[in-house]
Amino acid sequence: MAAVITNGAATNSIAPFHSSPVQDQKKIDQALRTFRCLIADLCEQFNGGHPGGAMGMAAIGIALWKYTMKYSPTNPNYFNRDRFVLSNGHTCLFQYTFLHLVGYPAMAMEQLKSYHSACTNSICPGHPEIEHDGIEVTTGPLGQGIANAVGLAMATKHLGARYNRPGFEIVNNMTWCMIGDACLQEGVALEAIQLAGHWKLNNLVVIYDNNQITCDGSVDLCNTEDINAKMRACGWDVIEVDDGCYDVPALVAALAQARSNNIKPTFINVHTLIGIGSKVAGDAKAHGVAFGAEDVASIKTRFGMDPEQHFIVQDEVYDFFRDAVPRGETFENDWKQLLEQYAKEYPEMHQEFSLRVQGKMTDDWTKILPSKEEFPTIPTASRKSAGLCCNPLASKLHNMMVGTADLTPSVNMAWKGKVDFQNPDLKTTCGINGDYSGRYIHWGIREHAMAAISNGLAAFNKGTILPVTSTFFMFYIYAAPGVRMGALQGLQQIHIATHDSIGTGEDGPTHQPIALAVLYRAMPDILYIRPCDSEETAGAFISALKATSSPTIISLSRQNLEQYPHYSCREKAQKGAYVFVEEEDADVTLLGVGAEMVFAMRTRHLLQEKFQIKARVVSFPCQKLFESQSIEYKRSVLKYQSIPRVVIEAYAVNGWERYADAGFSMSSFGHSLPGAAAYKYFGFDEQIIAPEVAKLVGDVKLNGLDSLRGEFRDLNPIHH
Amino acid sequence: MAAVITNGAATNSIAPFHSSPVQDQKKIDQALRTFRCLIADLCEQFNGGHPGGAMGMAAIGIALWKYTMKYSPTNPNYFNRDRFVLSNGHTCLFQYTFLHLVGYPAMAMEQLKSYHSACTNSICPGHPEIEHDGIEVTTGPLGQGIANAVGLAMATKHLGARYNRPGFEIVNNMTWCMIGDACLQEGVALEAIQLAGHWKLNNLVVIYDNNQITCDGSVDLCNTEDINAKMRACGWDVIEVDDGCYDVPALVAALAQARSNNIKPTFINVHTLIGIGSKVAGDAKAHGVAFGAEDVASIKTRFGMDPEQHFIVQDEVYDFFRDAVPRGETFENDWKQLLEQYAKEYPEMHQEFSLRVQGKMTDDWTKILPSKEEFPTIPTASRKSAGLCCNPLASKLHNMMVGTADLTPSVNMAWKGKVDFQNPDLKTTCGINGDYSGRYIHWGIREHAMAAISNGLAAFNKGTILPVTSTFFMFYIYAAPGVRMGALQGLQQIHIATHDSIGTGEDGPTHQPIALAVLYRAMPDILYIRPCDSEETAGAFISALKATSSPTIISLSRQNLEQYPHYSCREKAQKGAYVFVEEEDADVTLLGVGAEMVFAMRTRHLLQEKFQIKARVVSFPCQKLFESQSIEYKRSVLKYQSIPRVVIEAYAVNGWERYADAGFSMSSFGHSLPGAAAYKYFGFDEQIIAPEVAKLVGDVKLNGLDSLRGEFRDLNPIHH
Repeated sequence: MAAVITNGAATNSIAPFHSSPVQDQKKIDQALRTFRCLIADLCEQFNGGHPGGAMGMAAIGIALWKYTMKYSPTNPNYFNRDRFVLSNGHTCLFQYTFLHLVGYPAMAMEQLKSYHSACTNSICPGHPEIEHDGIEVTTGPLGQGIANAVGLAMATKHLGARYNRPGFEIVNNMTWCMIGDACLQEGVALEAIQLAGHWKLNNLVVIYDNNQITCDGSVDLCNTEDINAKMRACGWDVIEVDDGCYDVPALVAALAQARSNNIKPTFINVHTLIGIGSKVAGDAKAHGVAFGAEDVASIKTRFGMDPEQHFIVQDEVYDFFRDAVPRGETFENDWKQLLEQYAKEYPEMHQEFSLRVQGKMTDDWTKILPSKEEFPTIPTASRKSAGLCCNPLASKLHNMMVGTADLTPSVNMAWKGKVDFQNPDLKTTCGINGDYSGRYIHWGIREHAMAAISNGLAAFNKGTILPVTSTFFMFYIYAAPGVRMGALQGLQQIHIATHDSIGTGEDGPTHQPIALAVLYRAMPDILYIRPCDSEETAGAFISALKATSSPTIISLSRQNLEQYPHYSCREKAQKGAYVFVEEEDADVTLLGVGAEMVFAMRTRHLLQEKFQIKARVVSFPCQKLFESQSIEYKRSVLKYQSIPRVVIEAYAVNGWERYADAGFSMSSFGHSLPGAAAYKYFGFDEQIIAPEVAKLVGDVKLNGLDSLRGEFRDLNPIHH
Repeated sequence: MAAVITNGAATNSIAPFHSSPVQDQKKIDQALRTFRCLIADLCEQFNGGHPGGAMGMAAIGIALWKYTMKYSPTNPNYFNRDRFVLSNGHTCLFQYTFLHLVGYPAMAMEQLKSYHSACTNSICPGHPEIEHDGIEVTTGPLGQGIANAVGLAMATKHLGARYNRPGFEIVNNMTWCMIGDACLQEGVALEAIQLAGHWKLNNLVVIYDNNQITCDGSVDLCNTEDINAKMRACGWDVIEVDDGCYDVPALVAALAQARSNNIKPTFINVHTLIGIGSKVAGDAKAHGVAFGAEDVASIKTRFGMDPEQHFIVQDEVYDFFRDAVPRGETFENDWKQLLEQYAKEYPEMHQEFSLRVQGKMTDDWTKILPSKEEFPTIPTASRKSAGLCCNPLASKLHNMMVGTADLTPSVNMAWKGKVDFQNPDLKTTCGINGDYSGRYIHWGIREHAMAAISNGLAAFNKGTILPVTSTFFMFYIYAAPGVRMGALQGLQQIHIATHDSIGTGEDGPTHQPIALAVLYRAMPDILYIRPCDSEETAGAFISALKATSSPTIISLSRQNLEQYPHYSCREKAQKGAYVFVEEEDADVTLLGVGAEMVFAMRTRHLLQEKFQIKARVVSFPCQKLFESQSIEYKRSVLKYQSIPRVVIEAYAVNGWERYADAGFSMSSFGHSLPGAAAYKYFGFDEQIIAPEVAKLVGDVKLNGLDSLRGEFRDLNPIHH
């Protein structure tokens, strides 16, 4: 049974200079009333927003920002601050308003009032965004915030394990994550909960705003599980708080107990009433709409405020929170002093730590990547090439945390001497143990959590940790919501996506990606790179390492690929596309992409031999990188004015129409066959491609290039 | 504690004419040995595949196909058969081999041998595919199979609730779902498990092949939860079987106990040894590679088989399974007789039931949709239009099961008089109850499970149930893996995707889709339709209802849209694109899409007024439908030979290059602003668009159309 903490329980707040919530009861009551009326006003002004949850959670907020969390409003990014994550991001007014009350300078009342306004530079968007002070991570759609919080808590454990020394806990912050009923239904959260329990992240506290209401009505419409029992089964400790709307002492005690948990992550199940004080309290109507002027007036009357006055925060309430700024500065100064001592005691570790705090790499990666000459010249799977690039990087660069969604034998990301990130008490059956300083992560078969937790790792302090995820490319459709949030936040990460085409083979159409590349090519602020051989794979890693403000997907083959040491070039590959084989008086440009470059090269050869057609070849690993080149460069590569361009790729062609006049591509899902046979089955064979290209070239010679333009041609004659 | 069933326990097999596994012990042992050697051989021949799991699960297979499941090899699709789902689909040889042994005519030994071969018409792909006899659903990537099984079990409950009468249980089949360690880590499975427990699907049995091995090694590398406690917390009963590799009587008893569970779904935790008999038994190496000739020989020696002989199934083993065919025919005949009696007793219900068994609609939907005249002419959100179309359909057509991922107030899918699909014992706090005959589904905040379970509903018997899912379009990125599997299987479904552009507004960039449409436009075998008003929304529903072999996404606005009764046309909309406003001697064609049609129409007007430029407008709700039109039709709509074409859509433009020479689109993520302000912020305003189009038209007049071609122009001058 859960330890139920009720009013009057112990109030062992974590810092002695905190006042006690029992002594503060009157001030707390006033703050609660003020907060709730303010939320109602803020939603009412533009007749929208999510008031109910924020109002219900007010007491939790006081317990957190007044009595529990270590943060510094005047330096929101001080390194060892506690991290707060709002997984139920629609209740963002909850967070914004507390940031205002405790004195984050940027969060003025005028900013609060810009919530849901047409103000284009508001720092109060409808869901919290990492760009703004006091926001640790853009949680976005429901469920991911828990995963982000797991990542933040991992980062602390990992950095602490590497840098802390006896008496020098230079990284020991807590992560506090607020969630609602919805988050506990999303699969990504359930995956992350398993992992946090497995890793015994005792520095992670999830606070469940248990109001039993979602948009559709009461939660028992769709969820009747025993959540406390479930969390315990997942390796969490559980505390229950009965009166989460008012009982700040009980909340403070629960949070303190959670902070002092030495063994497990803590789940605090807090019972609240959504929209407390309004006429729709406890109803789904309190969730996502303003209450209406009449109800707002009634709320204020009920809470002893003047219904005629709006956006009122009494001086007493500001006074109540005024200790937050000096307290935060003390936290930060204490930490700085500790760090100074640490620098004297452990100068080398301090130097490394400083680099990482600044977001710098711990070693010069440019010197670590293998040279072209070091790669094998025999046909090599690009997933193997990726290992040849990434393994030496990962072994040297302490920033890198590399993991896989249970495909260690397939993705080649495990380097010699790797240590697993694991709870140090764990002794695994298979004899591979680890500790928190380990940098190899067994994500299990949890692609979405892998991406969303990696966002937390990367967001801990930009550049301190560079997460590398890996799985089959097809499974990045599971991870897509998390990968997208990484892009939206501009978080540097490298996603190693192997088995990236129908060359995946026998696993069949369920595992062969066709349309997914188009998603990532169209997605803003992410690079999707398909290298054609080892040298281009090195180029892809360079692009990824240079892209400090965006994630990169490196898309790799399962099967062995021809190597093109005479043509491929890591520098040129970073331009997204480049001339691979030039040809004077060429009749056609073939765009070769990634694993399908071999078909472009063979087609070129056959066109020459059999059709006396001259083809030049362009390698096109990354559309996004190419788009950022100058128009002159683009024209020199594509020669669009003079000869037709044909793209060859075993994906849906959508989007290639920008660069090509015709395409040899896939128009259906794949088929379970050995990789080479799968290619053949779908017409990827120079004996089939070359005649189609020849026909196209013939048409153009007859009718002119313009006859072709404006109407993209699908050349693949094979349809299944 | 789990009820541990061990050898010698009760053997209450479900059909009296079954022999008893205790009596059959010798035959069972021989079958186990034979089966395991055969699996090893089948993987060895092409040096690949997944042998270990199948070998470990052999005894489970005997318990299922010999002693438990109701099925008929000679009529694999008889309606009331038990459904078997292989969620750990990589172990497909397990299923294929049992289908062979029990006499599915299509599954000859030659077919088994085609596993992993280059045979293009093999019915033994690397993961099971629904097209083939005995395969109920294409489970695909891990985790989804459990969700599919939940859908199949729901279908039984639902149809039984509607059609069964006292003494006439015409739909009462069980669903048996095999899973591995991985499935219990995937979020989609965890979502589905919650729902199955909530709905008390006592006809669902999940059999957990608990071998504690995944690709990376032992499961405790990444999962150390107490799974039995967790399943119980989710509302499941748990049975544990200690010796899952040999103890067929215990397995049969567990399955029988599960079948007779009147209250809850059952989770059977079966302890097995992966790759049993091989030298790598119990090791990750047994998972996904062939054992090598030496080990295969050793396996055979250990199991008393001749190492020199391959693919051996002794007559005694075939004999052992020979009762499956007559037994299956008896099952089917009994059911047919019952149905004949039912037809006499309940002729009307029988008639309706027969229609559904045939996959036919229970009413003529063409007459139910509102006419153009019945739609409001004032600006109307297309999500509202969708309600106006779907609500009357859903209220009349018993095939339709409509649900939402907790967005009932937003998606307008709830019709008057709807009854919820719920366990009939449930009394919800908010006073909305239901029963299994209900056709409105509260999926909770579980988008991936919504899609994957809907695949199970649709796969139960094609056409019997038409699932309609709904949520915000952005959240279909969570659902994408399931939506894709629906497309891959050709399952008719309608996905109602509301809030489909930056018009979503205040929720911000995290909720505003930019790149997602491109994924669904590129994905094979699915329609993605963006109607521009109510009339086109009706057209979208007609397309979706006609598309009996593919899912359809109808993509709808949050905000009110202008209605174009003089231009829009449901019949023409079904062609994917059509001339919306024709114009003689037009200078430019504007492609208007969905919610952004208003900008095309206003731009047309402003071009005429201010720039004396004549623009024709094409409405383009669906690329896939347009692609299937004749070349003549396409040319008549796009007039590609004569004037430039400009697409206007607030998405990433990728793919529109096929139909347009220039685009006014989005190149970044969105922004939190009220919908109208968000459009303006990103340049979607005729005052900004028209001058850009005018410039383009001017260029073309000066330099000719060909000067434009081959180099797509992005017209939007606004970049944030």
